[in-house]
Amino acid sequence: MTIYLDNAATTFPKPERVYQEMDSCLRNYGANPGRSGHKLALDAGRAIYKTRELVCQLFNIENPMQVIFTSNATDSLNLALKGVLRSGDHVITTSMEHNSMVRPITALEEIGVENTIVQCDEQGVLDPQKIKTAIKTNTKLIAMTHASNVTGTLMPIQEVGLIAKEQGIYFLVDGAQTAGVYDIDVQKMNIDLFAAPGHKGLLGPQGTGILYIREGIELRHMKEGGTGSKSEQLQQPEIIPDRYESGTPNTPGIVGLGAGIDFILKTGIDKIREHEEGLLKVMLDEFGNIDKLRIYGPVDPKRQTAVVSINIGDEDSSEVSYVLDKVYDIAVRSGLHCAPLAHKTIGTFEQGTIRFSMGYFNTHEEIMKVVTALKQICEELENE
Amino acid sequence: MTIYLDNAATTFPKPERVYQEMDSCLRNYGANPGRSGHKLALDAGRAIYKTRELVCQLFNIENPMQVIFTSNATDSLNLALKGVLRSGDHVITTSMEHNSMVRPITALEEIGVENTIVQCDEQGVLDPQKIKTAIKTNTKLIAMTHASNVTGTLMPIQEVGLIAKEQGIYFLVDGAQTAGVYDIDVQKMNIDLFAAPGHKGLLGPQGTGILYIREGIELRHMKEGGTGSKSEQLQQPEIIPDRYESGTPNTPGIVGLGAGIDFILKTGIDKIREHEEGLLKVMLDEFGNIDKLRIYGPVDPKRQTAVVSINIGDEDSSEVSYVLDKVYDIAVRSGLHCAPLAHKTIGTFEQGTIRFSMGYFNTHEEIMKVVTALKQICEELENE
Repeated sequence: MTIYLDNAATTFPKPERVYQEMDSCLRNYGANPGRSGHKLALDAGRAIYKTRELVCQLFNIENPMQVIFTSNATDSLNLALKGVLRSGDHVITTSMEHNSMVRPITALEEIGVENTIVQCDEQGVLDPQKIKTAIKTNTKLIAMTHASNVTGTLMPIQEVGLIAKEQGIYFLVDGAQTAGVYDIDVQKMNIDLFAAPGHKGLLGPQGTGILYIREGIELRHMKEGGTGSKSEQLQQPEIIPDRYESGTPNTPGIVGLGAGIDFILKTGIDKIREHEEGLLKVMLDEFGNIDKLRIYGPVDPKRQTAVVSINIGDEDSSEVSYVLDKVYDIAVRSGLHCAPLAHKTIGTFEQGTIRFSMGYFNTHEEIMKVVTALKQICEELENE
Repeated sequence: MTIYLDNAATTFPKPERVYQEMDSCLRNYGANPGRSGHKLALDAGRAIYKTRELVCQLFNIENPMQVIFTSNATDSLNLALKGVLRSGDHVITTSMEHNSMVRPITALEEIGVENTIVQCDEQGVLDPQKIKTAIKTNTKLIAMTHASNVTGTLMPIQEVGLIAKEQGIYFLVDGAQTAGVYDIDVQKMNIDLFAAPGHKGLLGPQGTGILYIREGIELRHMKEGGTGSKSEQLQQPEIIPDRYESGTPNTPGIVGLGAGIDFILKTGIDKIREHEEGLLKVMLDEFGNIDKLRIYGPVDPKRQTAVVSINIGDEDSSEVSYVLDKVYDIAVRSGLHCAPLAHKTIGTFEQGTIRFSMGYFNTHEEIMKVVTALKQICEELENE
């Protein structure tokens, strides 16, 4: 049985109810929601609305219509960034971002958007005062992740949210590494735009993502098409969420996402986080006892998500992960993790890292097997 | 048991193997494809590649890398239209298009793209010579559907493909109503860009779509983000399909799409089409015998898809479809079908139509039940 420690890429497995609800949707009410008025179509439409409500419950969003379904967090971030930023606007981001944030901003730079990348320290930690210092008269948006996908480093989004609010600047948070595990309250944290994948901590299937848009913020739409509403007009309708959701939605995926969030709400997000923190503490403690092993990030279960990036001396990270997979059936990710600036920040742009990322379904026993495997690998490398 | 006749919106049910393959993907190899190198991730990557190959087989595409996975046909059409057209370019389309074509073109008009909408006749039939006449020196693209979603009218794409080729103009075809049922050969038909939903005739799940891009055509990308490739660079990579596929793909959906196409290839597309044509012939013949019933489109099983739009006298189309649903458990769509120009073309912009759209899993017995229901409804209306 594979020990799956690649939950930062996508959580696996999902709760049983996710599989069952998706299958039931496909088999029993696989109609097109919001287009027709017959029973099956209405069932599909209701199921989608139910997921919108569950998203609201989890993130303390007031109006379900402000929740947009997308195909992944990248899709959400593109819509948020390109929806807000125009030529001449200034955006502030950090050096720990994923390419899903960096690459659309780079594309926007080509059309005249100014960009400041605030440098984080070697553990990936951001000083919120540096964000404040970077603000200029044309700053329109602060856009940053809630936690690094490379080191797990948690970012001070509450503090930055306050700064953004004080200055009247929009605040976009990428919750790819935290949604479903860490408390996120868009109102309390002054988050104007919140992007998250459905298939990571939210425990839904791949092919789903969400974007919360604070009421009153009007984004430029990225796609136009059939919405099932205002069918008579050739222009994209203004109604939300239709304005941002053209074409047939991923109904079975959204139903699965609803089942994932339902699992989180019923289990309790605190219980999920405490379990992951527990696994993380064991891993950090045990890894700390292995010579030659370098651990990146804060190395503190309270200051990072259940993500541990390491290297063994100068060994190629891909080779170590290959051995973990082939010999020990342990699934991890190695290399650059789609976040080149983060690797530059922590000094692993050449070597990459071996990343262990844990989820709610991992066990202490599995972590101890990983520790044993790593010890053996280190020993063998020493004997070579 | 519901008689489902809304297959033009999404096919239902799907082949059993679609449900099974999706469930198996979710349960057994639900990892993130193309990001990590471990066994589960490689399995997911291989499954996606297999679907690319099946798409190629169905549409005679040479290189699987030229098949882009999207979230629906609207997503595909947006990428194609916005990827090709720049300010000053001219695009030709028809008066039978869905809003998924019309609305992005309308948005492009706002940034200086010129648009000519070629008028079709009252049955929705296009004279290809009118396309030829509309060509100007700055015509960059001819963009049209293969069949109307309102009347089923089949469009002369082979003839238009030749015209486009002769004039060196790109040709984009929207296969939303035909892919999986009608023969489409992108090479023989000179199609440069081919968009289709995964969840209609291709029998896959909602949340999937494809865009074929002829080799050598470089589109502007609509989204940037993590691709699992060239992770070190801040710009979107040039590699295809990665360039157009940012973020985690809808792996279970794409697996389901593969199972749907596999079903088509093994059943035989001719057998599927002949079955649908048979149902269509019965429906057209029987509907023709009902007084007060007006049938739109060619009323010819060889010149239209298995879609029949009707009205009963001046009755509100929504009310008739409501009765069909509530009293007879027959699921159809009424109203404008997201294609306002098509309704203007056939003269139903005010009334809309009641649309019956058949699929491979409908039976002759079901069609006869529909005929009986419609006769009863007409009688009752007469007695009112």
